[in-house]
Amino acid sequence: MTQLPQVGIGVDVHAFAAEDSGRALWVGGIAWPDQVGLEGHSDADVACHAACDALFSAANIGDLGAHFGTARPELSGASGVTLLAEAARLVRAAGFEIGNVAVQVVGNRPKIGTRRDEAQAAMSQACGAPVSLAGTTTDGLGLTGRGEGCAAIATALVVATDPARAAD
Amino acid sequence: MTQLPQVGIGVDVHAFAAEDSGRALWVGGIAWPDQVGLEGHSDADVACHAACDALFSAANIGDLGAHFGTARPELSGASGVTLLAEAARLVRAAGFEIGNVAVQVVGNRPKIGTRRDEAQAAMSQACGAPVSLAGTTTDGLGLTGRGEGCAAIATALVVATDPARAAD
Amino acid sequence: MTQLPQVGIGVDVHAFAAEDSGRALWVGGIAWPDQVGLEGHSDADVACHAACDALFSAANIGDLGAHFGTARPELSGASGVTLLAEAARLVRAAGFEIGNVAVQVVGNRPKIGTRRDEAQAAMSQACGAPVSLAGTTTDGLGLTGRGEGCAAIATALVVATDPARAAD
Repeated sequence: MTQLPQVGIGVDVHAFAAEDSGRALWVGGIAWPDQVGLEGHSDADVACHAACDALFSAANIGDLGAHFGTARPELSGASGVTLLAEAARLVRAAGFEIGNVAVQVVGNRPKIGTRRDEAQAAMSQACGAPVSLAGTTTDGLGLTGRGEGCAAIATALVVATDPARAAD
Repeated sequence: MTQLPQVGIGVDVHAFAAEDSGRALWVGGIAWPDQVGLEGHSDADVACHAACDALFSAANIGDLGAHFGTARPELSGASGVTLLAEAARLVRAAGFEIGNVAVQVVGNRPKIGTRRDEAQAAMSQACGAPVSLAGTTTDGLGLTGRGEGCAAIATALVVATDPARAAD
Repeated sequence: MTQLPQVGIGVDVHAFAAEDSGRALWVGGIAWPDQVGLEGHSDADVACHAACDALFSAANIGDLGAHFGTARPELSGASGVTLLAEAARLVRAAGFEIGNVAVQVVGNRPKIGTRRDEAQAAMSQACGAPVSLAGTTTDGLGLTGRGEGCAAIATALVVATDPARAAD
């Protein structure tokens, strides 16, 4: 059989900052002006973070905490697209081609549909592979429905370019 | 390398309606008699909605809101299987073959295992491709565990029938 | 076209037991000493349970409740790795090769990164195929952020070894 592709999964959640926090909102690799942002040491871009974890998960090379945690202080506070570009680089360096990444933002805001093309372009450019971005809400329920935070869920497909490097 | 398949992800949540609402429960493309339904403009079939979003996500052609929102009033209130059939048609029209769709319903009810074959048949027929349907609970925790609503999560695999149409 | 692979999805949630419950914590196929465990009839290993459901979902052969429920009392209380090994056996018996399984643990503890290799080895051995294990938190929000429970989400890729047995 030819080399099977590998799939991965990633979820991320960040809390919305206080109204008077002055935090900017970054989701999907773009800024959403005049909206209160998400809390976090980085820009808290849940879409980019979930995409990173889906890629690491598919390639079986750890997770966001392992790669971008305290071991690499130069990435502390890095933007979502910077992290996504670096995650894609690491996945390729581990011997994989990236097929696609699919991300769904789950939350009351931002409204992905209003700027989907722009966000998808930013994420796809960072990743060097097609990224699809979707949005949904949870009917007023749960942490996202109550507006406490914003979540994202992602999946990714990669394939070993050198079959000897396939996950084993 | 031959054309890589593409994967997608979709989550949906609807709140349960009030006991005296008279709403019917539709999940997985079938009605569950004598059970209080989910709220929504449509039948609120979380399994079908998550499946639609997973398909759109894999094919990189937007999401449920973009396709079935206010732009197409004729689909307002459409059943889950009607939306799933239309989503599958749109994905094929965009140049993709649908490999499979996998959906897990997360909630206290309905109990998918009691009528899995029937629901899977309804969804697979609508989709024109194999749909697997599973169920689980969250041990009494969260929005589904407290019985406030019902959630579904889905993934899908598609492949470009015309490589020139692959996500880019 | 050659046989397309199939993807699946699985989520599992268990509540943390009371401090004085004496329950051991099992997540990712390994024990986490000196930590309060999760409640459940089995060892409540959310990572293994989500992996099982992702495999069943991809192969379209039901779910955890269908296979390991009351119909097979000998599996009552079985460990996560025992269930994962049996799920992998059932998927292969149904005519599928397992490509990979990817699992993300969502919760405040255990900290997967501290023992990732050990847990991945335990799950991969049980599965007979590569399993990647990642961890994340939800920024203090939701059932996992409040420390009420621990969740896991998984995806899997399988391919029919006998095309005549592919999902249909």
